[in-house]
Amino acid sequence: MKIDFESAVNVLKNADKVLVLSHANPDGDAIGSSHALAHALKKLGKQVKVKNADEYAEKFDYITKLIGDGDFEESFIVTTDVADAKLLGKAFEEKYAGRIDLSIDHHGTNRLFAKETYLEADSASACEIVYNIIESLGAPIDSDIANCLFTGVSTDTGCFRYSNVTPRTHLIAAKLIEAGADHSRINTKMFETKKLCALELERLCLDSMKLFENGQACFFVITKEMAEKTGCSESDFDALVALSRQIEGVKVGVTLKEKADGTFKASVRTGEEVDASVICQAFGGGGHTRASGCAFGKDSNEAVEKLLVEIKKQL
Amino acid sequence: MKIDFESAVNVLKNADKVLVLSHANPDGDAIGSSHALAHALKKLGKQVKVKNADEYAEKFDYITKLIGDGDFEESFIVTTDVADAKLLGKAFEEKYAGRIDLSIDHHGTNRLFAKETYLEADSASACEIVYNIIESLGAPIDSDIANCLFTGVSTDTGCFRYSNVTPRTHLIAAKLIEAGADHSRINTKMFETKKLCALELERLCLDSMKLFENGQACFFVITKEMAEKTGCSESDFDALVALSRQIEGVKVGVTLKEKADGTFKASVRTGEEVDASVICQAFGGGGHTRASGCAFGKDSNEAVEKLLVEIKKQL
Repeated sequence: MKIDFESAVNVLKNADKVLVLSHANPDGDAIGSSHALAHALKKLGKQVKVKNADEYAEKFDYITKLIGDGDFEESFIVTTDVADAKLLGKAFEEKYAGRIDLSIDHHGTNRLFAKETYLEADSASACEIVYNIIESLGAPIDSDIANCLFTGVSTDTGCFRYSNVTPRTHLIAAKLIEAGADHSRINTKMFETKKLCALELERLCLDSMKLFENGQACFFVITKEMAEKTGCSESDFDALVALSRQIEGVKVGVTLKEKADGTFKASVRTGEEVDASVICQAFGGGGHTRASGCAFGKDSNEAVEKLLVEIKKQL
Repeated sequence: MKIDFESAVNVLKNADKVLVLSHANPDGDAIGSSHALAHALKKLGKQVKVKNADEYAEKFDYITKLIGDGDFEESFIVTTDVADAKLLGKAFEEKYAGRIDLSIDHHGTNRLFAKETYLEADSASACEIVYNIIESLGAPIDSDIANCLFTGVSTDTGCFRYSNVTPRTHLIAAKLIEAGADHSRINTKMFETKKLCALELERLCLDSMKLFENGQACFFVITKEMAEKTGCSESDFDALVALSRQIEGVKVGVTLKEKADGTFKASVRTGEEVDASVICQAFGGGGHTRASGCAFGKDSNEAVEKLLVEIKKQL
């Protein structure tokens, strides 16, 4: 059931022994929103713990090292930035699906998997929503919370670059910097640092780049072999996923990443003219208008062919 | 002579037949601040024209096509984003130096070359200052002015990424988006579009990259031959200049660009620990703490050696 902002705040006010979850393979918004909410609920005197099915990337240490697994049995479970119980990761889905009390989310595709859902589909990040919730909860926003929230606000907008940015995004960023967010260091960590291995992988991707439809559709393929050769891991792929759509003239950029089991995952990025989620929904995936994903089998050429059929429909 | 904010606003209120100048080789902040101020003064009923010693890059057409050379003799000259009369470009320096009535600037290195100077060295961009001036002048900020100002606010902060960003930067961005700035399209144009030629040039630069001081100093050299081979022009070099400092572990990134006459210009970018302007001042150049420039002769190896001496002092 969808609930309004005030109800969401009240539900959290009355909750205790809270477990905060976010989606597997957690990004800056998932990590930032879940940890910021946990900090705030702690400040209100509640017992709180944060969990994720996957390991947090090391670059988020400044967030994740401050809150751990609390030693108590949860009586309330809230998720942030999770559109579907499946996205909690297989183990967590099995353990927690059906037990989620509140979902706080900004994905238009939210499946309403929780008992109650507070959804702002026009919010650029879950962290924007959590900022407003924390303000209404009356918890003071200190520099730890500001760092968590700034991370999500910044990463989910590509550092204030994407079309999902609204005046509110910048107003919240201003308030978070005032509250002590170490904005420049966070941005440097999230966006400015390029590993040599990532630059090497970029070179390999550019070598194998395929352009279709007069250069409007661009495909990168990252094989396990390429990742091994360069020493790159999953978190190093993000810049390439973005790059696939940034090349002049490209309207749809697709990065096919080979997973450990040899199957391919597609990350689809689009410009203003094309809806990425429509393309990915054709293959059982989904996401945002400009950034979506879906899964394929072990043949990357087949994935390219299948995706091209859907892409052509949208161009 | 330095003057305060109120005086600067009053000087502009009393001015007419205004010529607005900015620095040669104009970037987003130079173009945005000069054109925004011109729009605002026009709205107040004044005759205004904008000039620059150099051609504007095509990507700024949405700004530069709206205001042209007015057909009148100027009786007041104001510069925005200009730290030194030399930076107007040789022809304009000869023509206008000594005649500048007001300099509006954010460079700590401003030489006070104008009759009166309004300087905010802690402002991330000239456009932030011009935003406040336009508000105080009482000129309405329409979408044209918002687009001009947003361009400078965004480009001079690397899209809100650099350490020069303050809460005010984000507050002004919020107001500009509310006023109709086409923020996402501007950001895409300024930051997201990569030409294939630029990617090719990046590959060549990475091939010839030199790392010193345990990888803390990185040098790229862009020769005329490399530019010709890839079809890249000056404006395509910006991403490489940024990249020189973004490689993991690099504290000082230098890009040496060969000019038409065979001499080299150095663009120096630094992380938190190092002051780029100190390094460049040793060679008669200057700029900001994190981004400065200076000029050398025709031998790029000699330039590297000379720069390394100063860089070592700072590391």
